Amino acid sequence: MKSLDRFIRALRRLPGVGPRQAERFAAYFLRASQGETEEFIHALAAIKQDVKLCPQCFSYSEDGLCEICRDPDRDRGLICVVEDPQDIESLEKTGAYKGLYHVLHGAISPMDGRGAEQVKVRELLERVQHAQPPVREVIIATDPDSEGETTALYLADLLRGLVGQVTRIGYGVPLGGDIDYMDEMTLGYSLKGRTKI
Amino acid sequence: MKSLDRFIRALRRLPGVGPRQAERFAAYFLRASQGETEEFIHALAAIKQDVKLCPQCFSYSEDGLCEICRDPDRDRGLICVVEDPQDIESLEKTGAYKGLYHVLHGAISPMDGRGAEQVKVRELLERVQHAQPPVREVIIATDPDSEGETTALYLADLLRGLVGQVTRIGYGVPLGGDIDYMDEMTLGYSLKGRTKI
Repeated sequence: MKSLDRFIRALRRLPGVGPRQAERFAAYFLRASQGETEEFIHALAAIKQDVKLCPQCFSYSEDGLCEICRDPDRDRGLICVVEDPQDIESLEKTGAYKGLYHVLHGAISPMDGRGAEQVKVRELLERVQHAQPPVREVIIATDPDSEGETTALYLADLLRGLVGQVTRIGYGVPLGGDIDYMDEMTLGYSLKGRTKI
Repeated sequence: MKSLDRFIRALRRLPGVGPRQAERFAAYFLRASQGETEEFIHALAAIKQDVKLCPQCFSYSEDGLCEICRDPDRDRGLICVVEDPQDIESLEKTGAYKGLYHVLHGAISPMDGRGAEQVKVRELLERVQHAQPPVREVIIATDPDSEGETTALYLADLLRGLVGQVTRIGYGVPLGGDIDYMDEMTLGYSLKGRTKI
């Protein structure tokens, strides 16, 4: 069936979607009313039209500066660097951070031929150099994998001297995790990063 | 952000999609080229236009009878009843079945107010009554949950007398399963359904 196969192939391009889930999604749309399907299509077309990147932090924004960059109550002396816009939502949920963000849109990955110029590194350097008030601290919250680590070390080298201090989010055992299932690197970090109770 | 929130709400309606996956899908579309997005939209619009139900078995079909119903090599004396079109693909993968199918498009669920008239039961009865050659066996392959069981018993009552025999797919321990994690109902069935080796 040509049309169905073509749509299932398009669904398979969504991140993490396997053949079963793609079939289930196609079945959902086949059962959906024409109105529901049109609403989906309009909502998709609208984000392509309306959603831009914030000119300061490169998170999503539909109208100039994003909500966080516009918020007068955020601490402008703090910038937390993340790989993707979705990471911001996770960090916001902690309620533990009141500074600004900077979205790289990826991590540096020499293996995949993705260098600093493919992510928003130059924009970060320009931003901290011209920041008023000056930036006291840049917290690097790239993913704790090899690309995120490479990116963190690379950024730390560039940023030292430009900002008060550069920090990296803490490594350790995640809450709810099982000590005996934890890899030795993580456990090693959790020992080094132990705190008094 | 109005547009993004609206699209994420639309994505959340897809089966099994939680807030994180919806955000990841939205990020995929925001990164996708305009051409890729248009291709997705066209593919979606095309299935709504092209994909119909096979007038005999009610599986998906883009042109009259579906491929299986049209296939002269399938055994027309056998009908396997399933809840959803996707179930057919799973059964076809076994390579163990060469008959036809009948898709109910759901199961009977008195708790949810879904009776026999909401699924393709009447169509199944008419089909077996007029089938040439007559139907030797109807295999009921509804899900082994309470709705699927209710539906199987209900159909068996209606079909007895109209067809040679009515059978139900076998219950037992799934391959690769762990005996000590298996529920006692399944284990009970696997004991009753034991075969000589």
